[in-house]
Amino acid sequence: MKLYYSKLSSSMAVHLVLEEIGKPYEAIQMDLDSQHQFTPEFLEINPKGRVPALVLDEGEKKVVLTEVPAILSYLAQINPELSLMPTDTLEFAKAQSFNAYLSSTVHVAHAHRRRGSRWSDCAECRTSMAAKVASNMSECFAFIQAHYLKKPWVLGDSFSVCDAYLFTISRWLEGDGVDINIFPEIRRHADAMLARPPIQRIAALHC
Amino acid sequence: MKLYYSKLSSSMAVHLVLEEIGKPYEAIQMDLDSQHQFTPEFLEINPKGRVPALVLDEGEKKVVLTEVPAILSYLAQINPELSLMPTDTLEFAKAQSFNAYLSSTVHVAHAHRRRGSRWSDCAECRTSMAAKVASNMSECFAFIQAHYLKKPWVLGDSFSVCDAYLFTISRWLEGDGVDINIFPEIRRHADAMLARPPIQRIAALHC
Repeated sequence: MKLYYSKLSSSMAVHLVLEEIGKPYEAIQMDLDSQHQFTPEFLEINPKGRVPALVLDEGEKKVVLTEVPAILSYLAQINPELSLMPTDTLEFAKAQSFNAYLSSTVHVAHAHRRRGSRWSDCAECRTSMAAKVASNMSECFAFIQAHYLKKPWVLGDSFSVCDAYLFTISRWLEGDGVDINIFPEIRRHADAMLARPPIQRIAALHC
Repeated sequence: MKLYYSKLSSSMAVHLVLEEIGKPYEAIQMDLDSQHQFTPEFLEINPKGRVPALVLDEGEKKVVLTEVPAILSYLAQINPELSLMPTDTLEFAKAQSFNAYLSSTVHVAHAHRRRGSRWSDCAECRTSMAAKVASNMSECFAFIQAHYLKKPWVLGDSFSVCDAYLFTISRWLEGDGVDINIFPEIRRHADAMLARPPIQRIAALHC
């Protein structure tokens, strides 16, 4: 497997899970500020021009998976011995709900700080979007702490891919102007993640 | 099962799938313009104050599922005889990737037309966001047509929950200022959907 990632992007969640799984993989760093994601070579791999892109060798042909929630549950399902997602249908759905919320609400809230040009051509408007990011991210994390995060891990007793995704996005809080200590359970979760050697190794790469 | 939905919102995708499944369910319409989603009664059901919310009776306690991609794959998995999603792990991941793209990119692009206050407190900025919706939605649908949509259905030969989700979002194009006929395969897909009686019934409710 070959992961195309960029530092501190949502692709870190996939990177963390690959390292937790512990099987060989290749990780290729992309520099989004240098527009590496828009080179013809990369667009051939992922026409979205985004990371993460996970390239699988499926016999003769290469298959490329994109979208964090889809990649995370795929990695969990092909490594069932690690129990990285529940196998019970309803519990799996709840894990998916969490990942979908992170990708379609929390990641999107964060993206309005530096990627506002996706949604407005006006520079002043992008400034106004950026000004709202801290309060939006605070609302999202208050919601996660109150309604999604069981203890000690997101889904309760078992570490799962949801933990890698939450940890990745919680690393954005400081840059978004939110003090993680306002959310003691999120802070405790981040500390618990950093006590795991595979997480330490990848977190060090994404500084 | 009890579905809380609002007309023409993404909850229509869940409504379509419940009707395709054909088992008894209750559908409760919410009027978002009248802020029904923020009543204490509804916030008790879904503290996000959003639709869809799918209430399951799981023995003693009620369970509420939110987030369209999670609900869609749950409904597919508890009705395996209908093959509404692939069971092969990689094919399931591809279907999930499609649903995740719709929820985190396409739905978000659309939401900047009428829900701009989520991301900016400035009225002029919301106007500038709305002005970019048509071009963003066009880009998304060009991408879907070129890279995701197999024929005749999203995943190829088999109708799946992905078709319900695509159809739901394609109904937003006209309001977003995009002529669906620019995308002949999307248009053909919408026509094929409307040839299915369960889809007709729900589409008529969501006018």
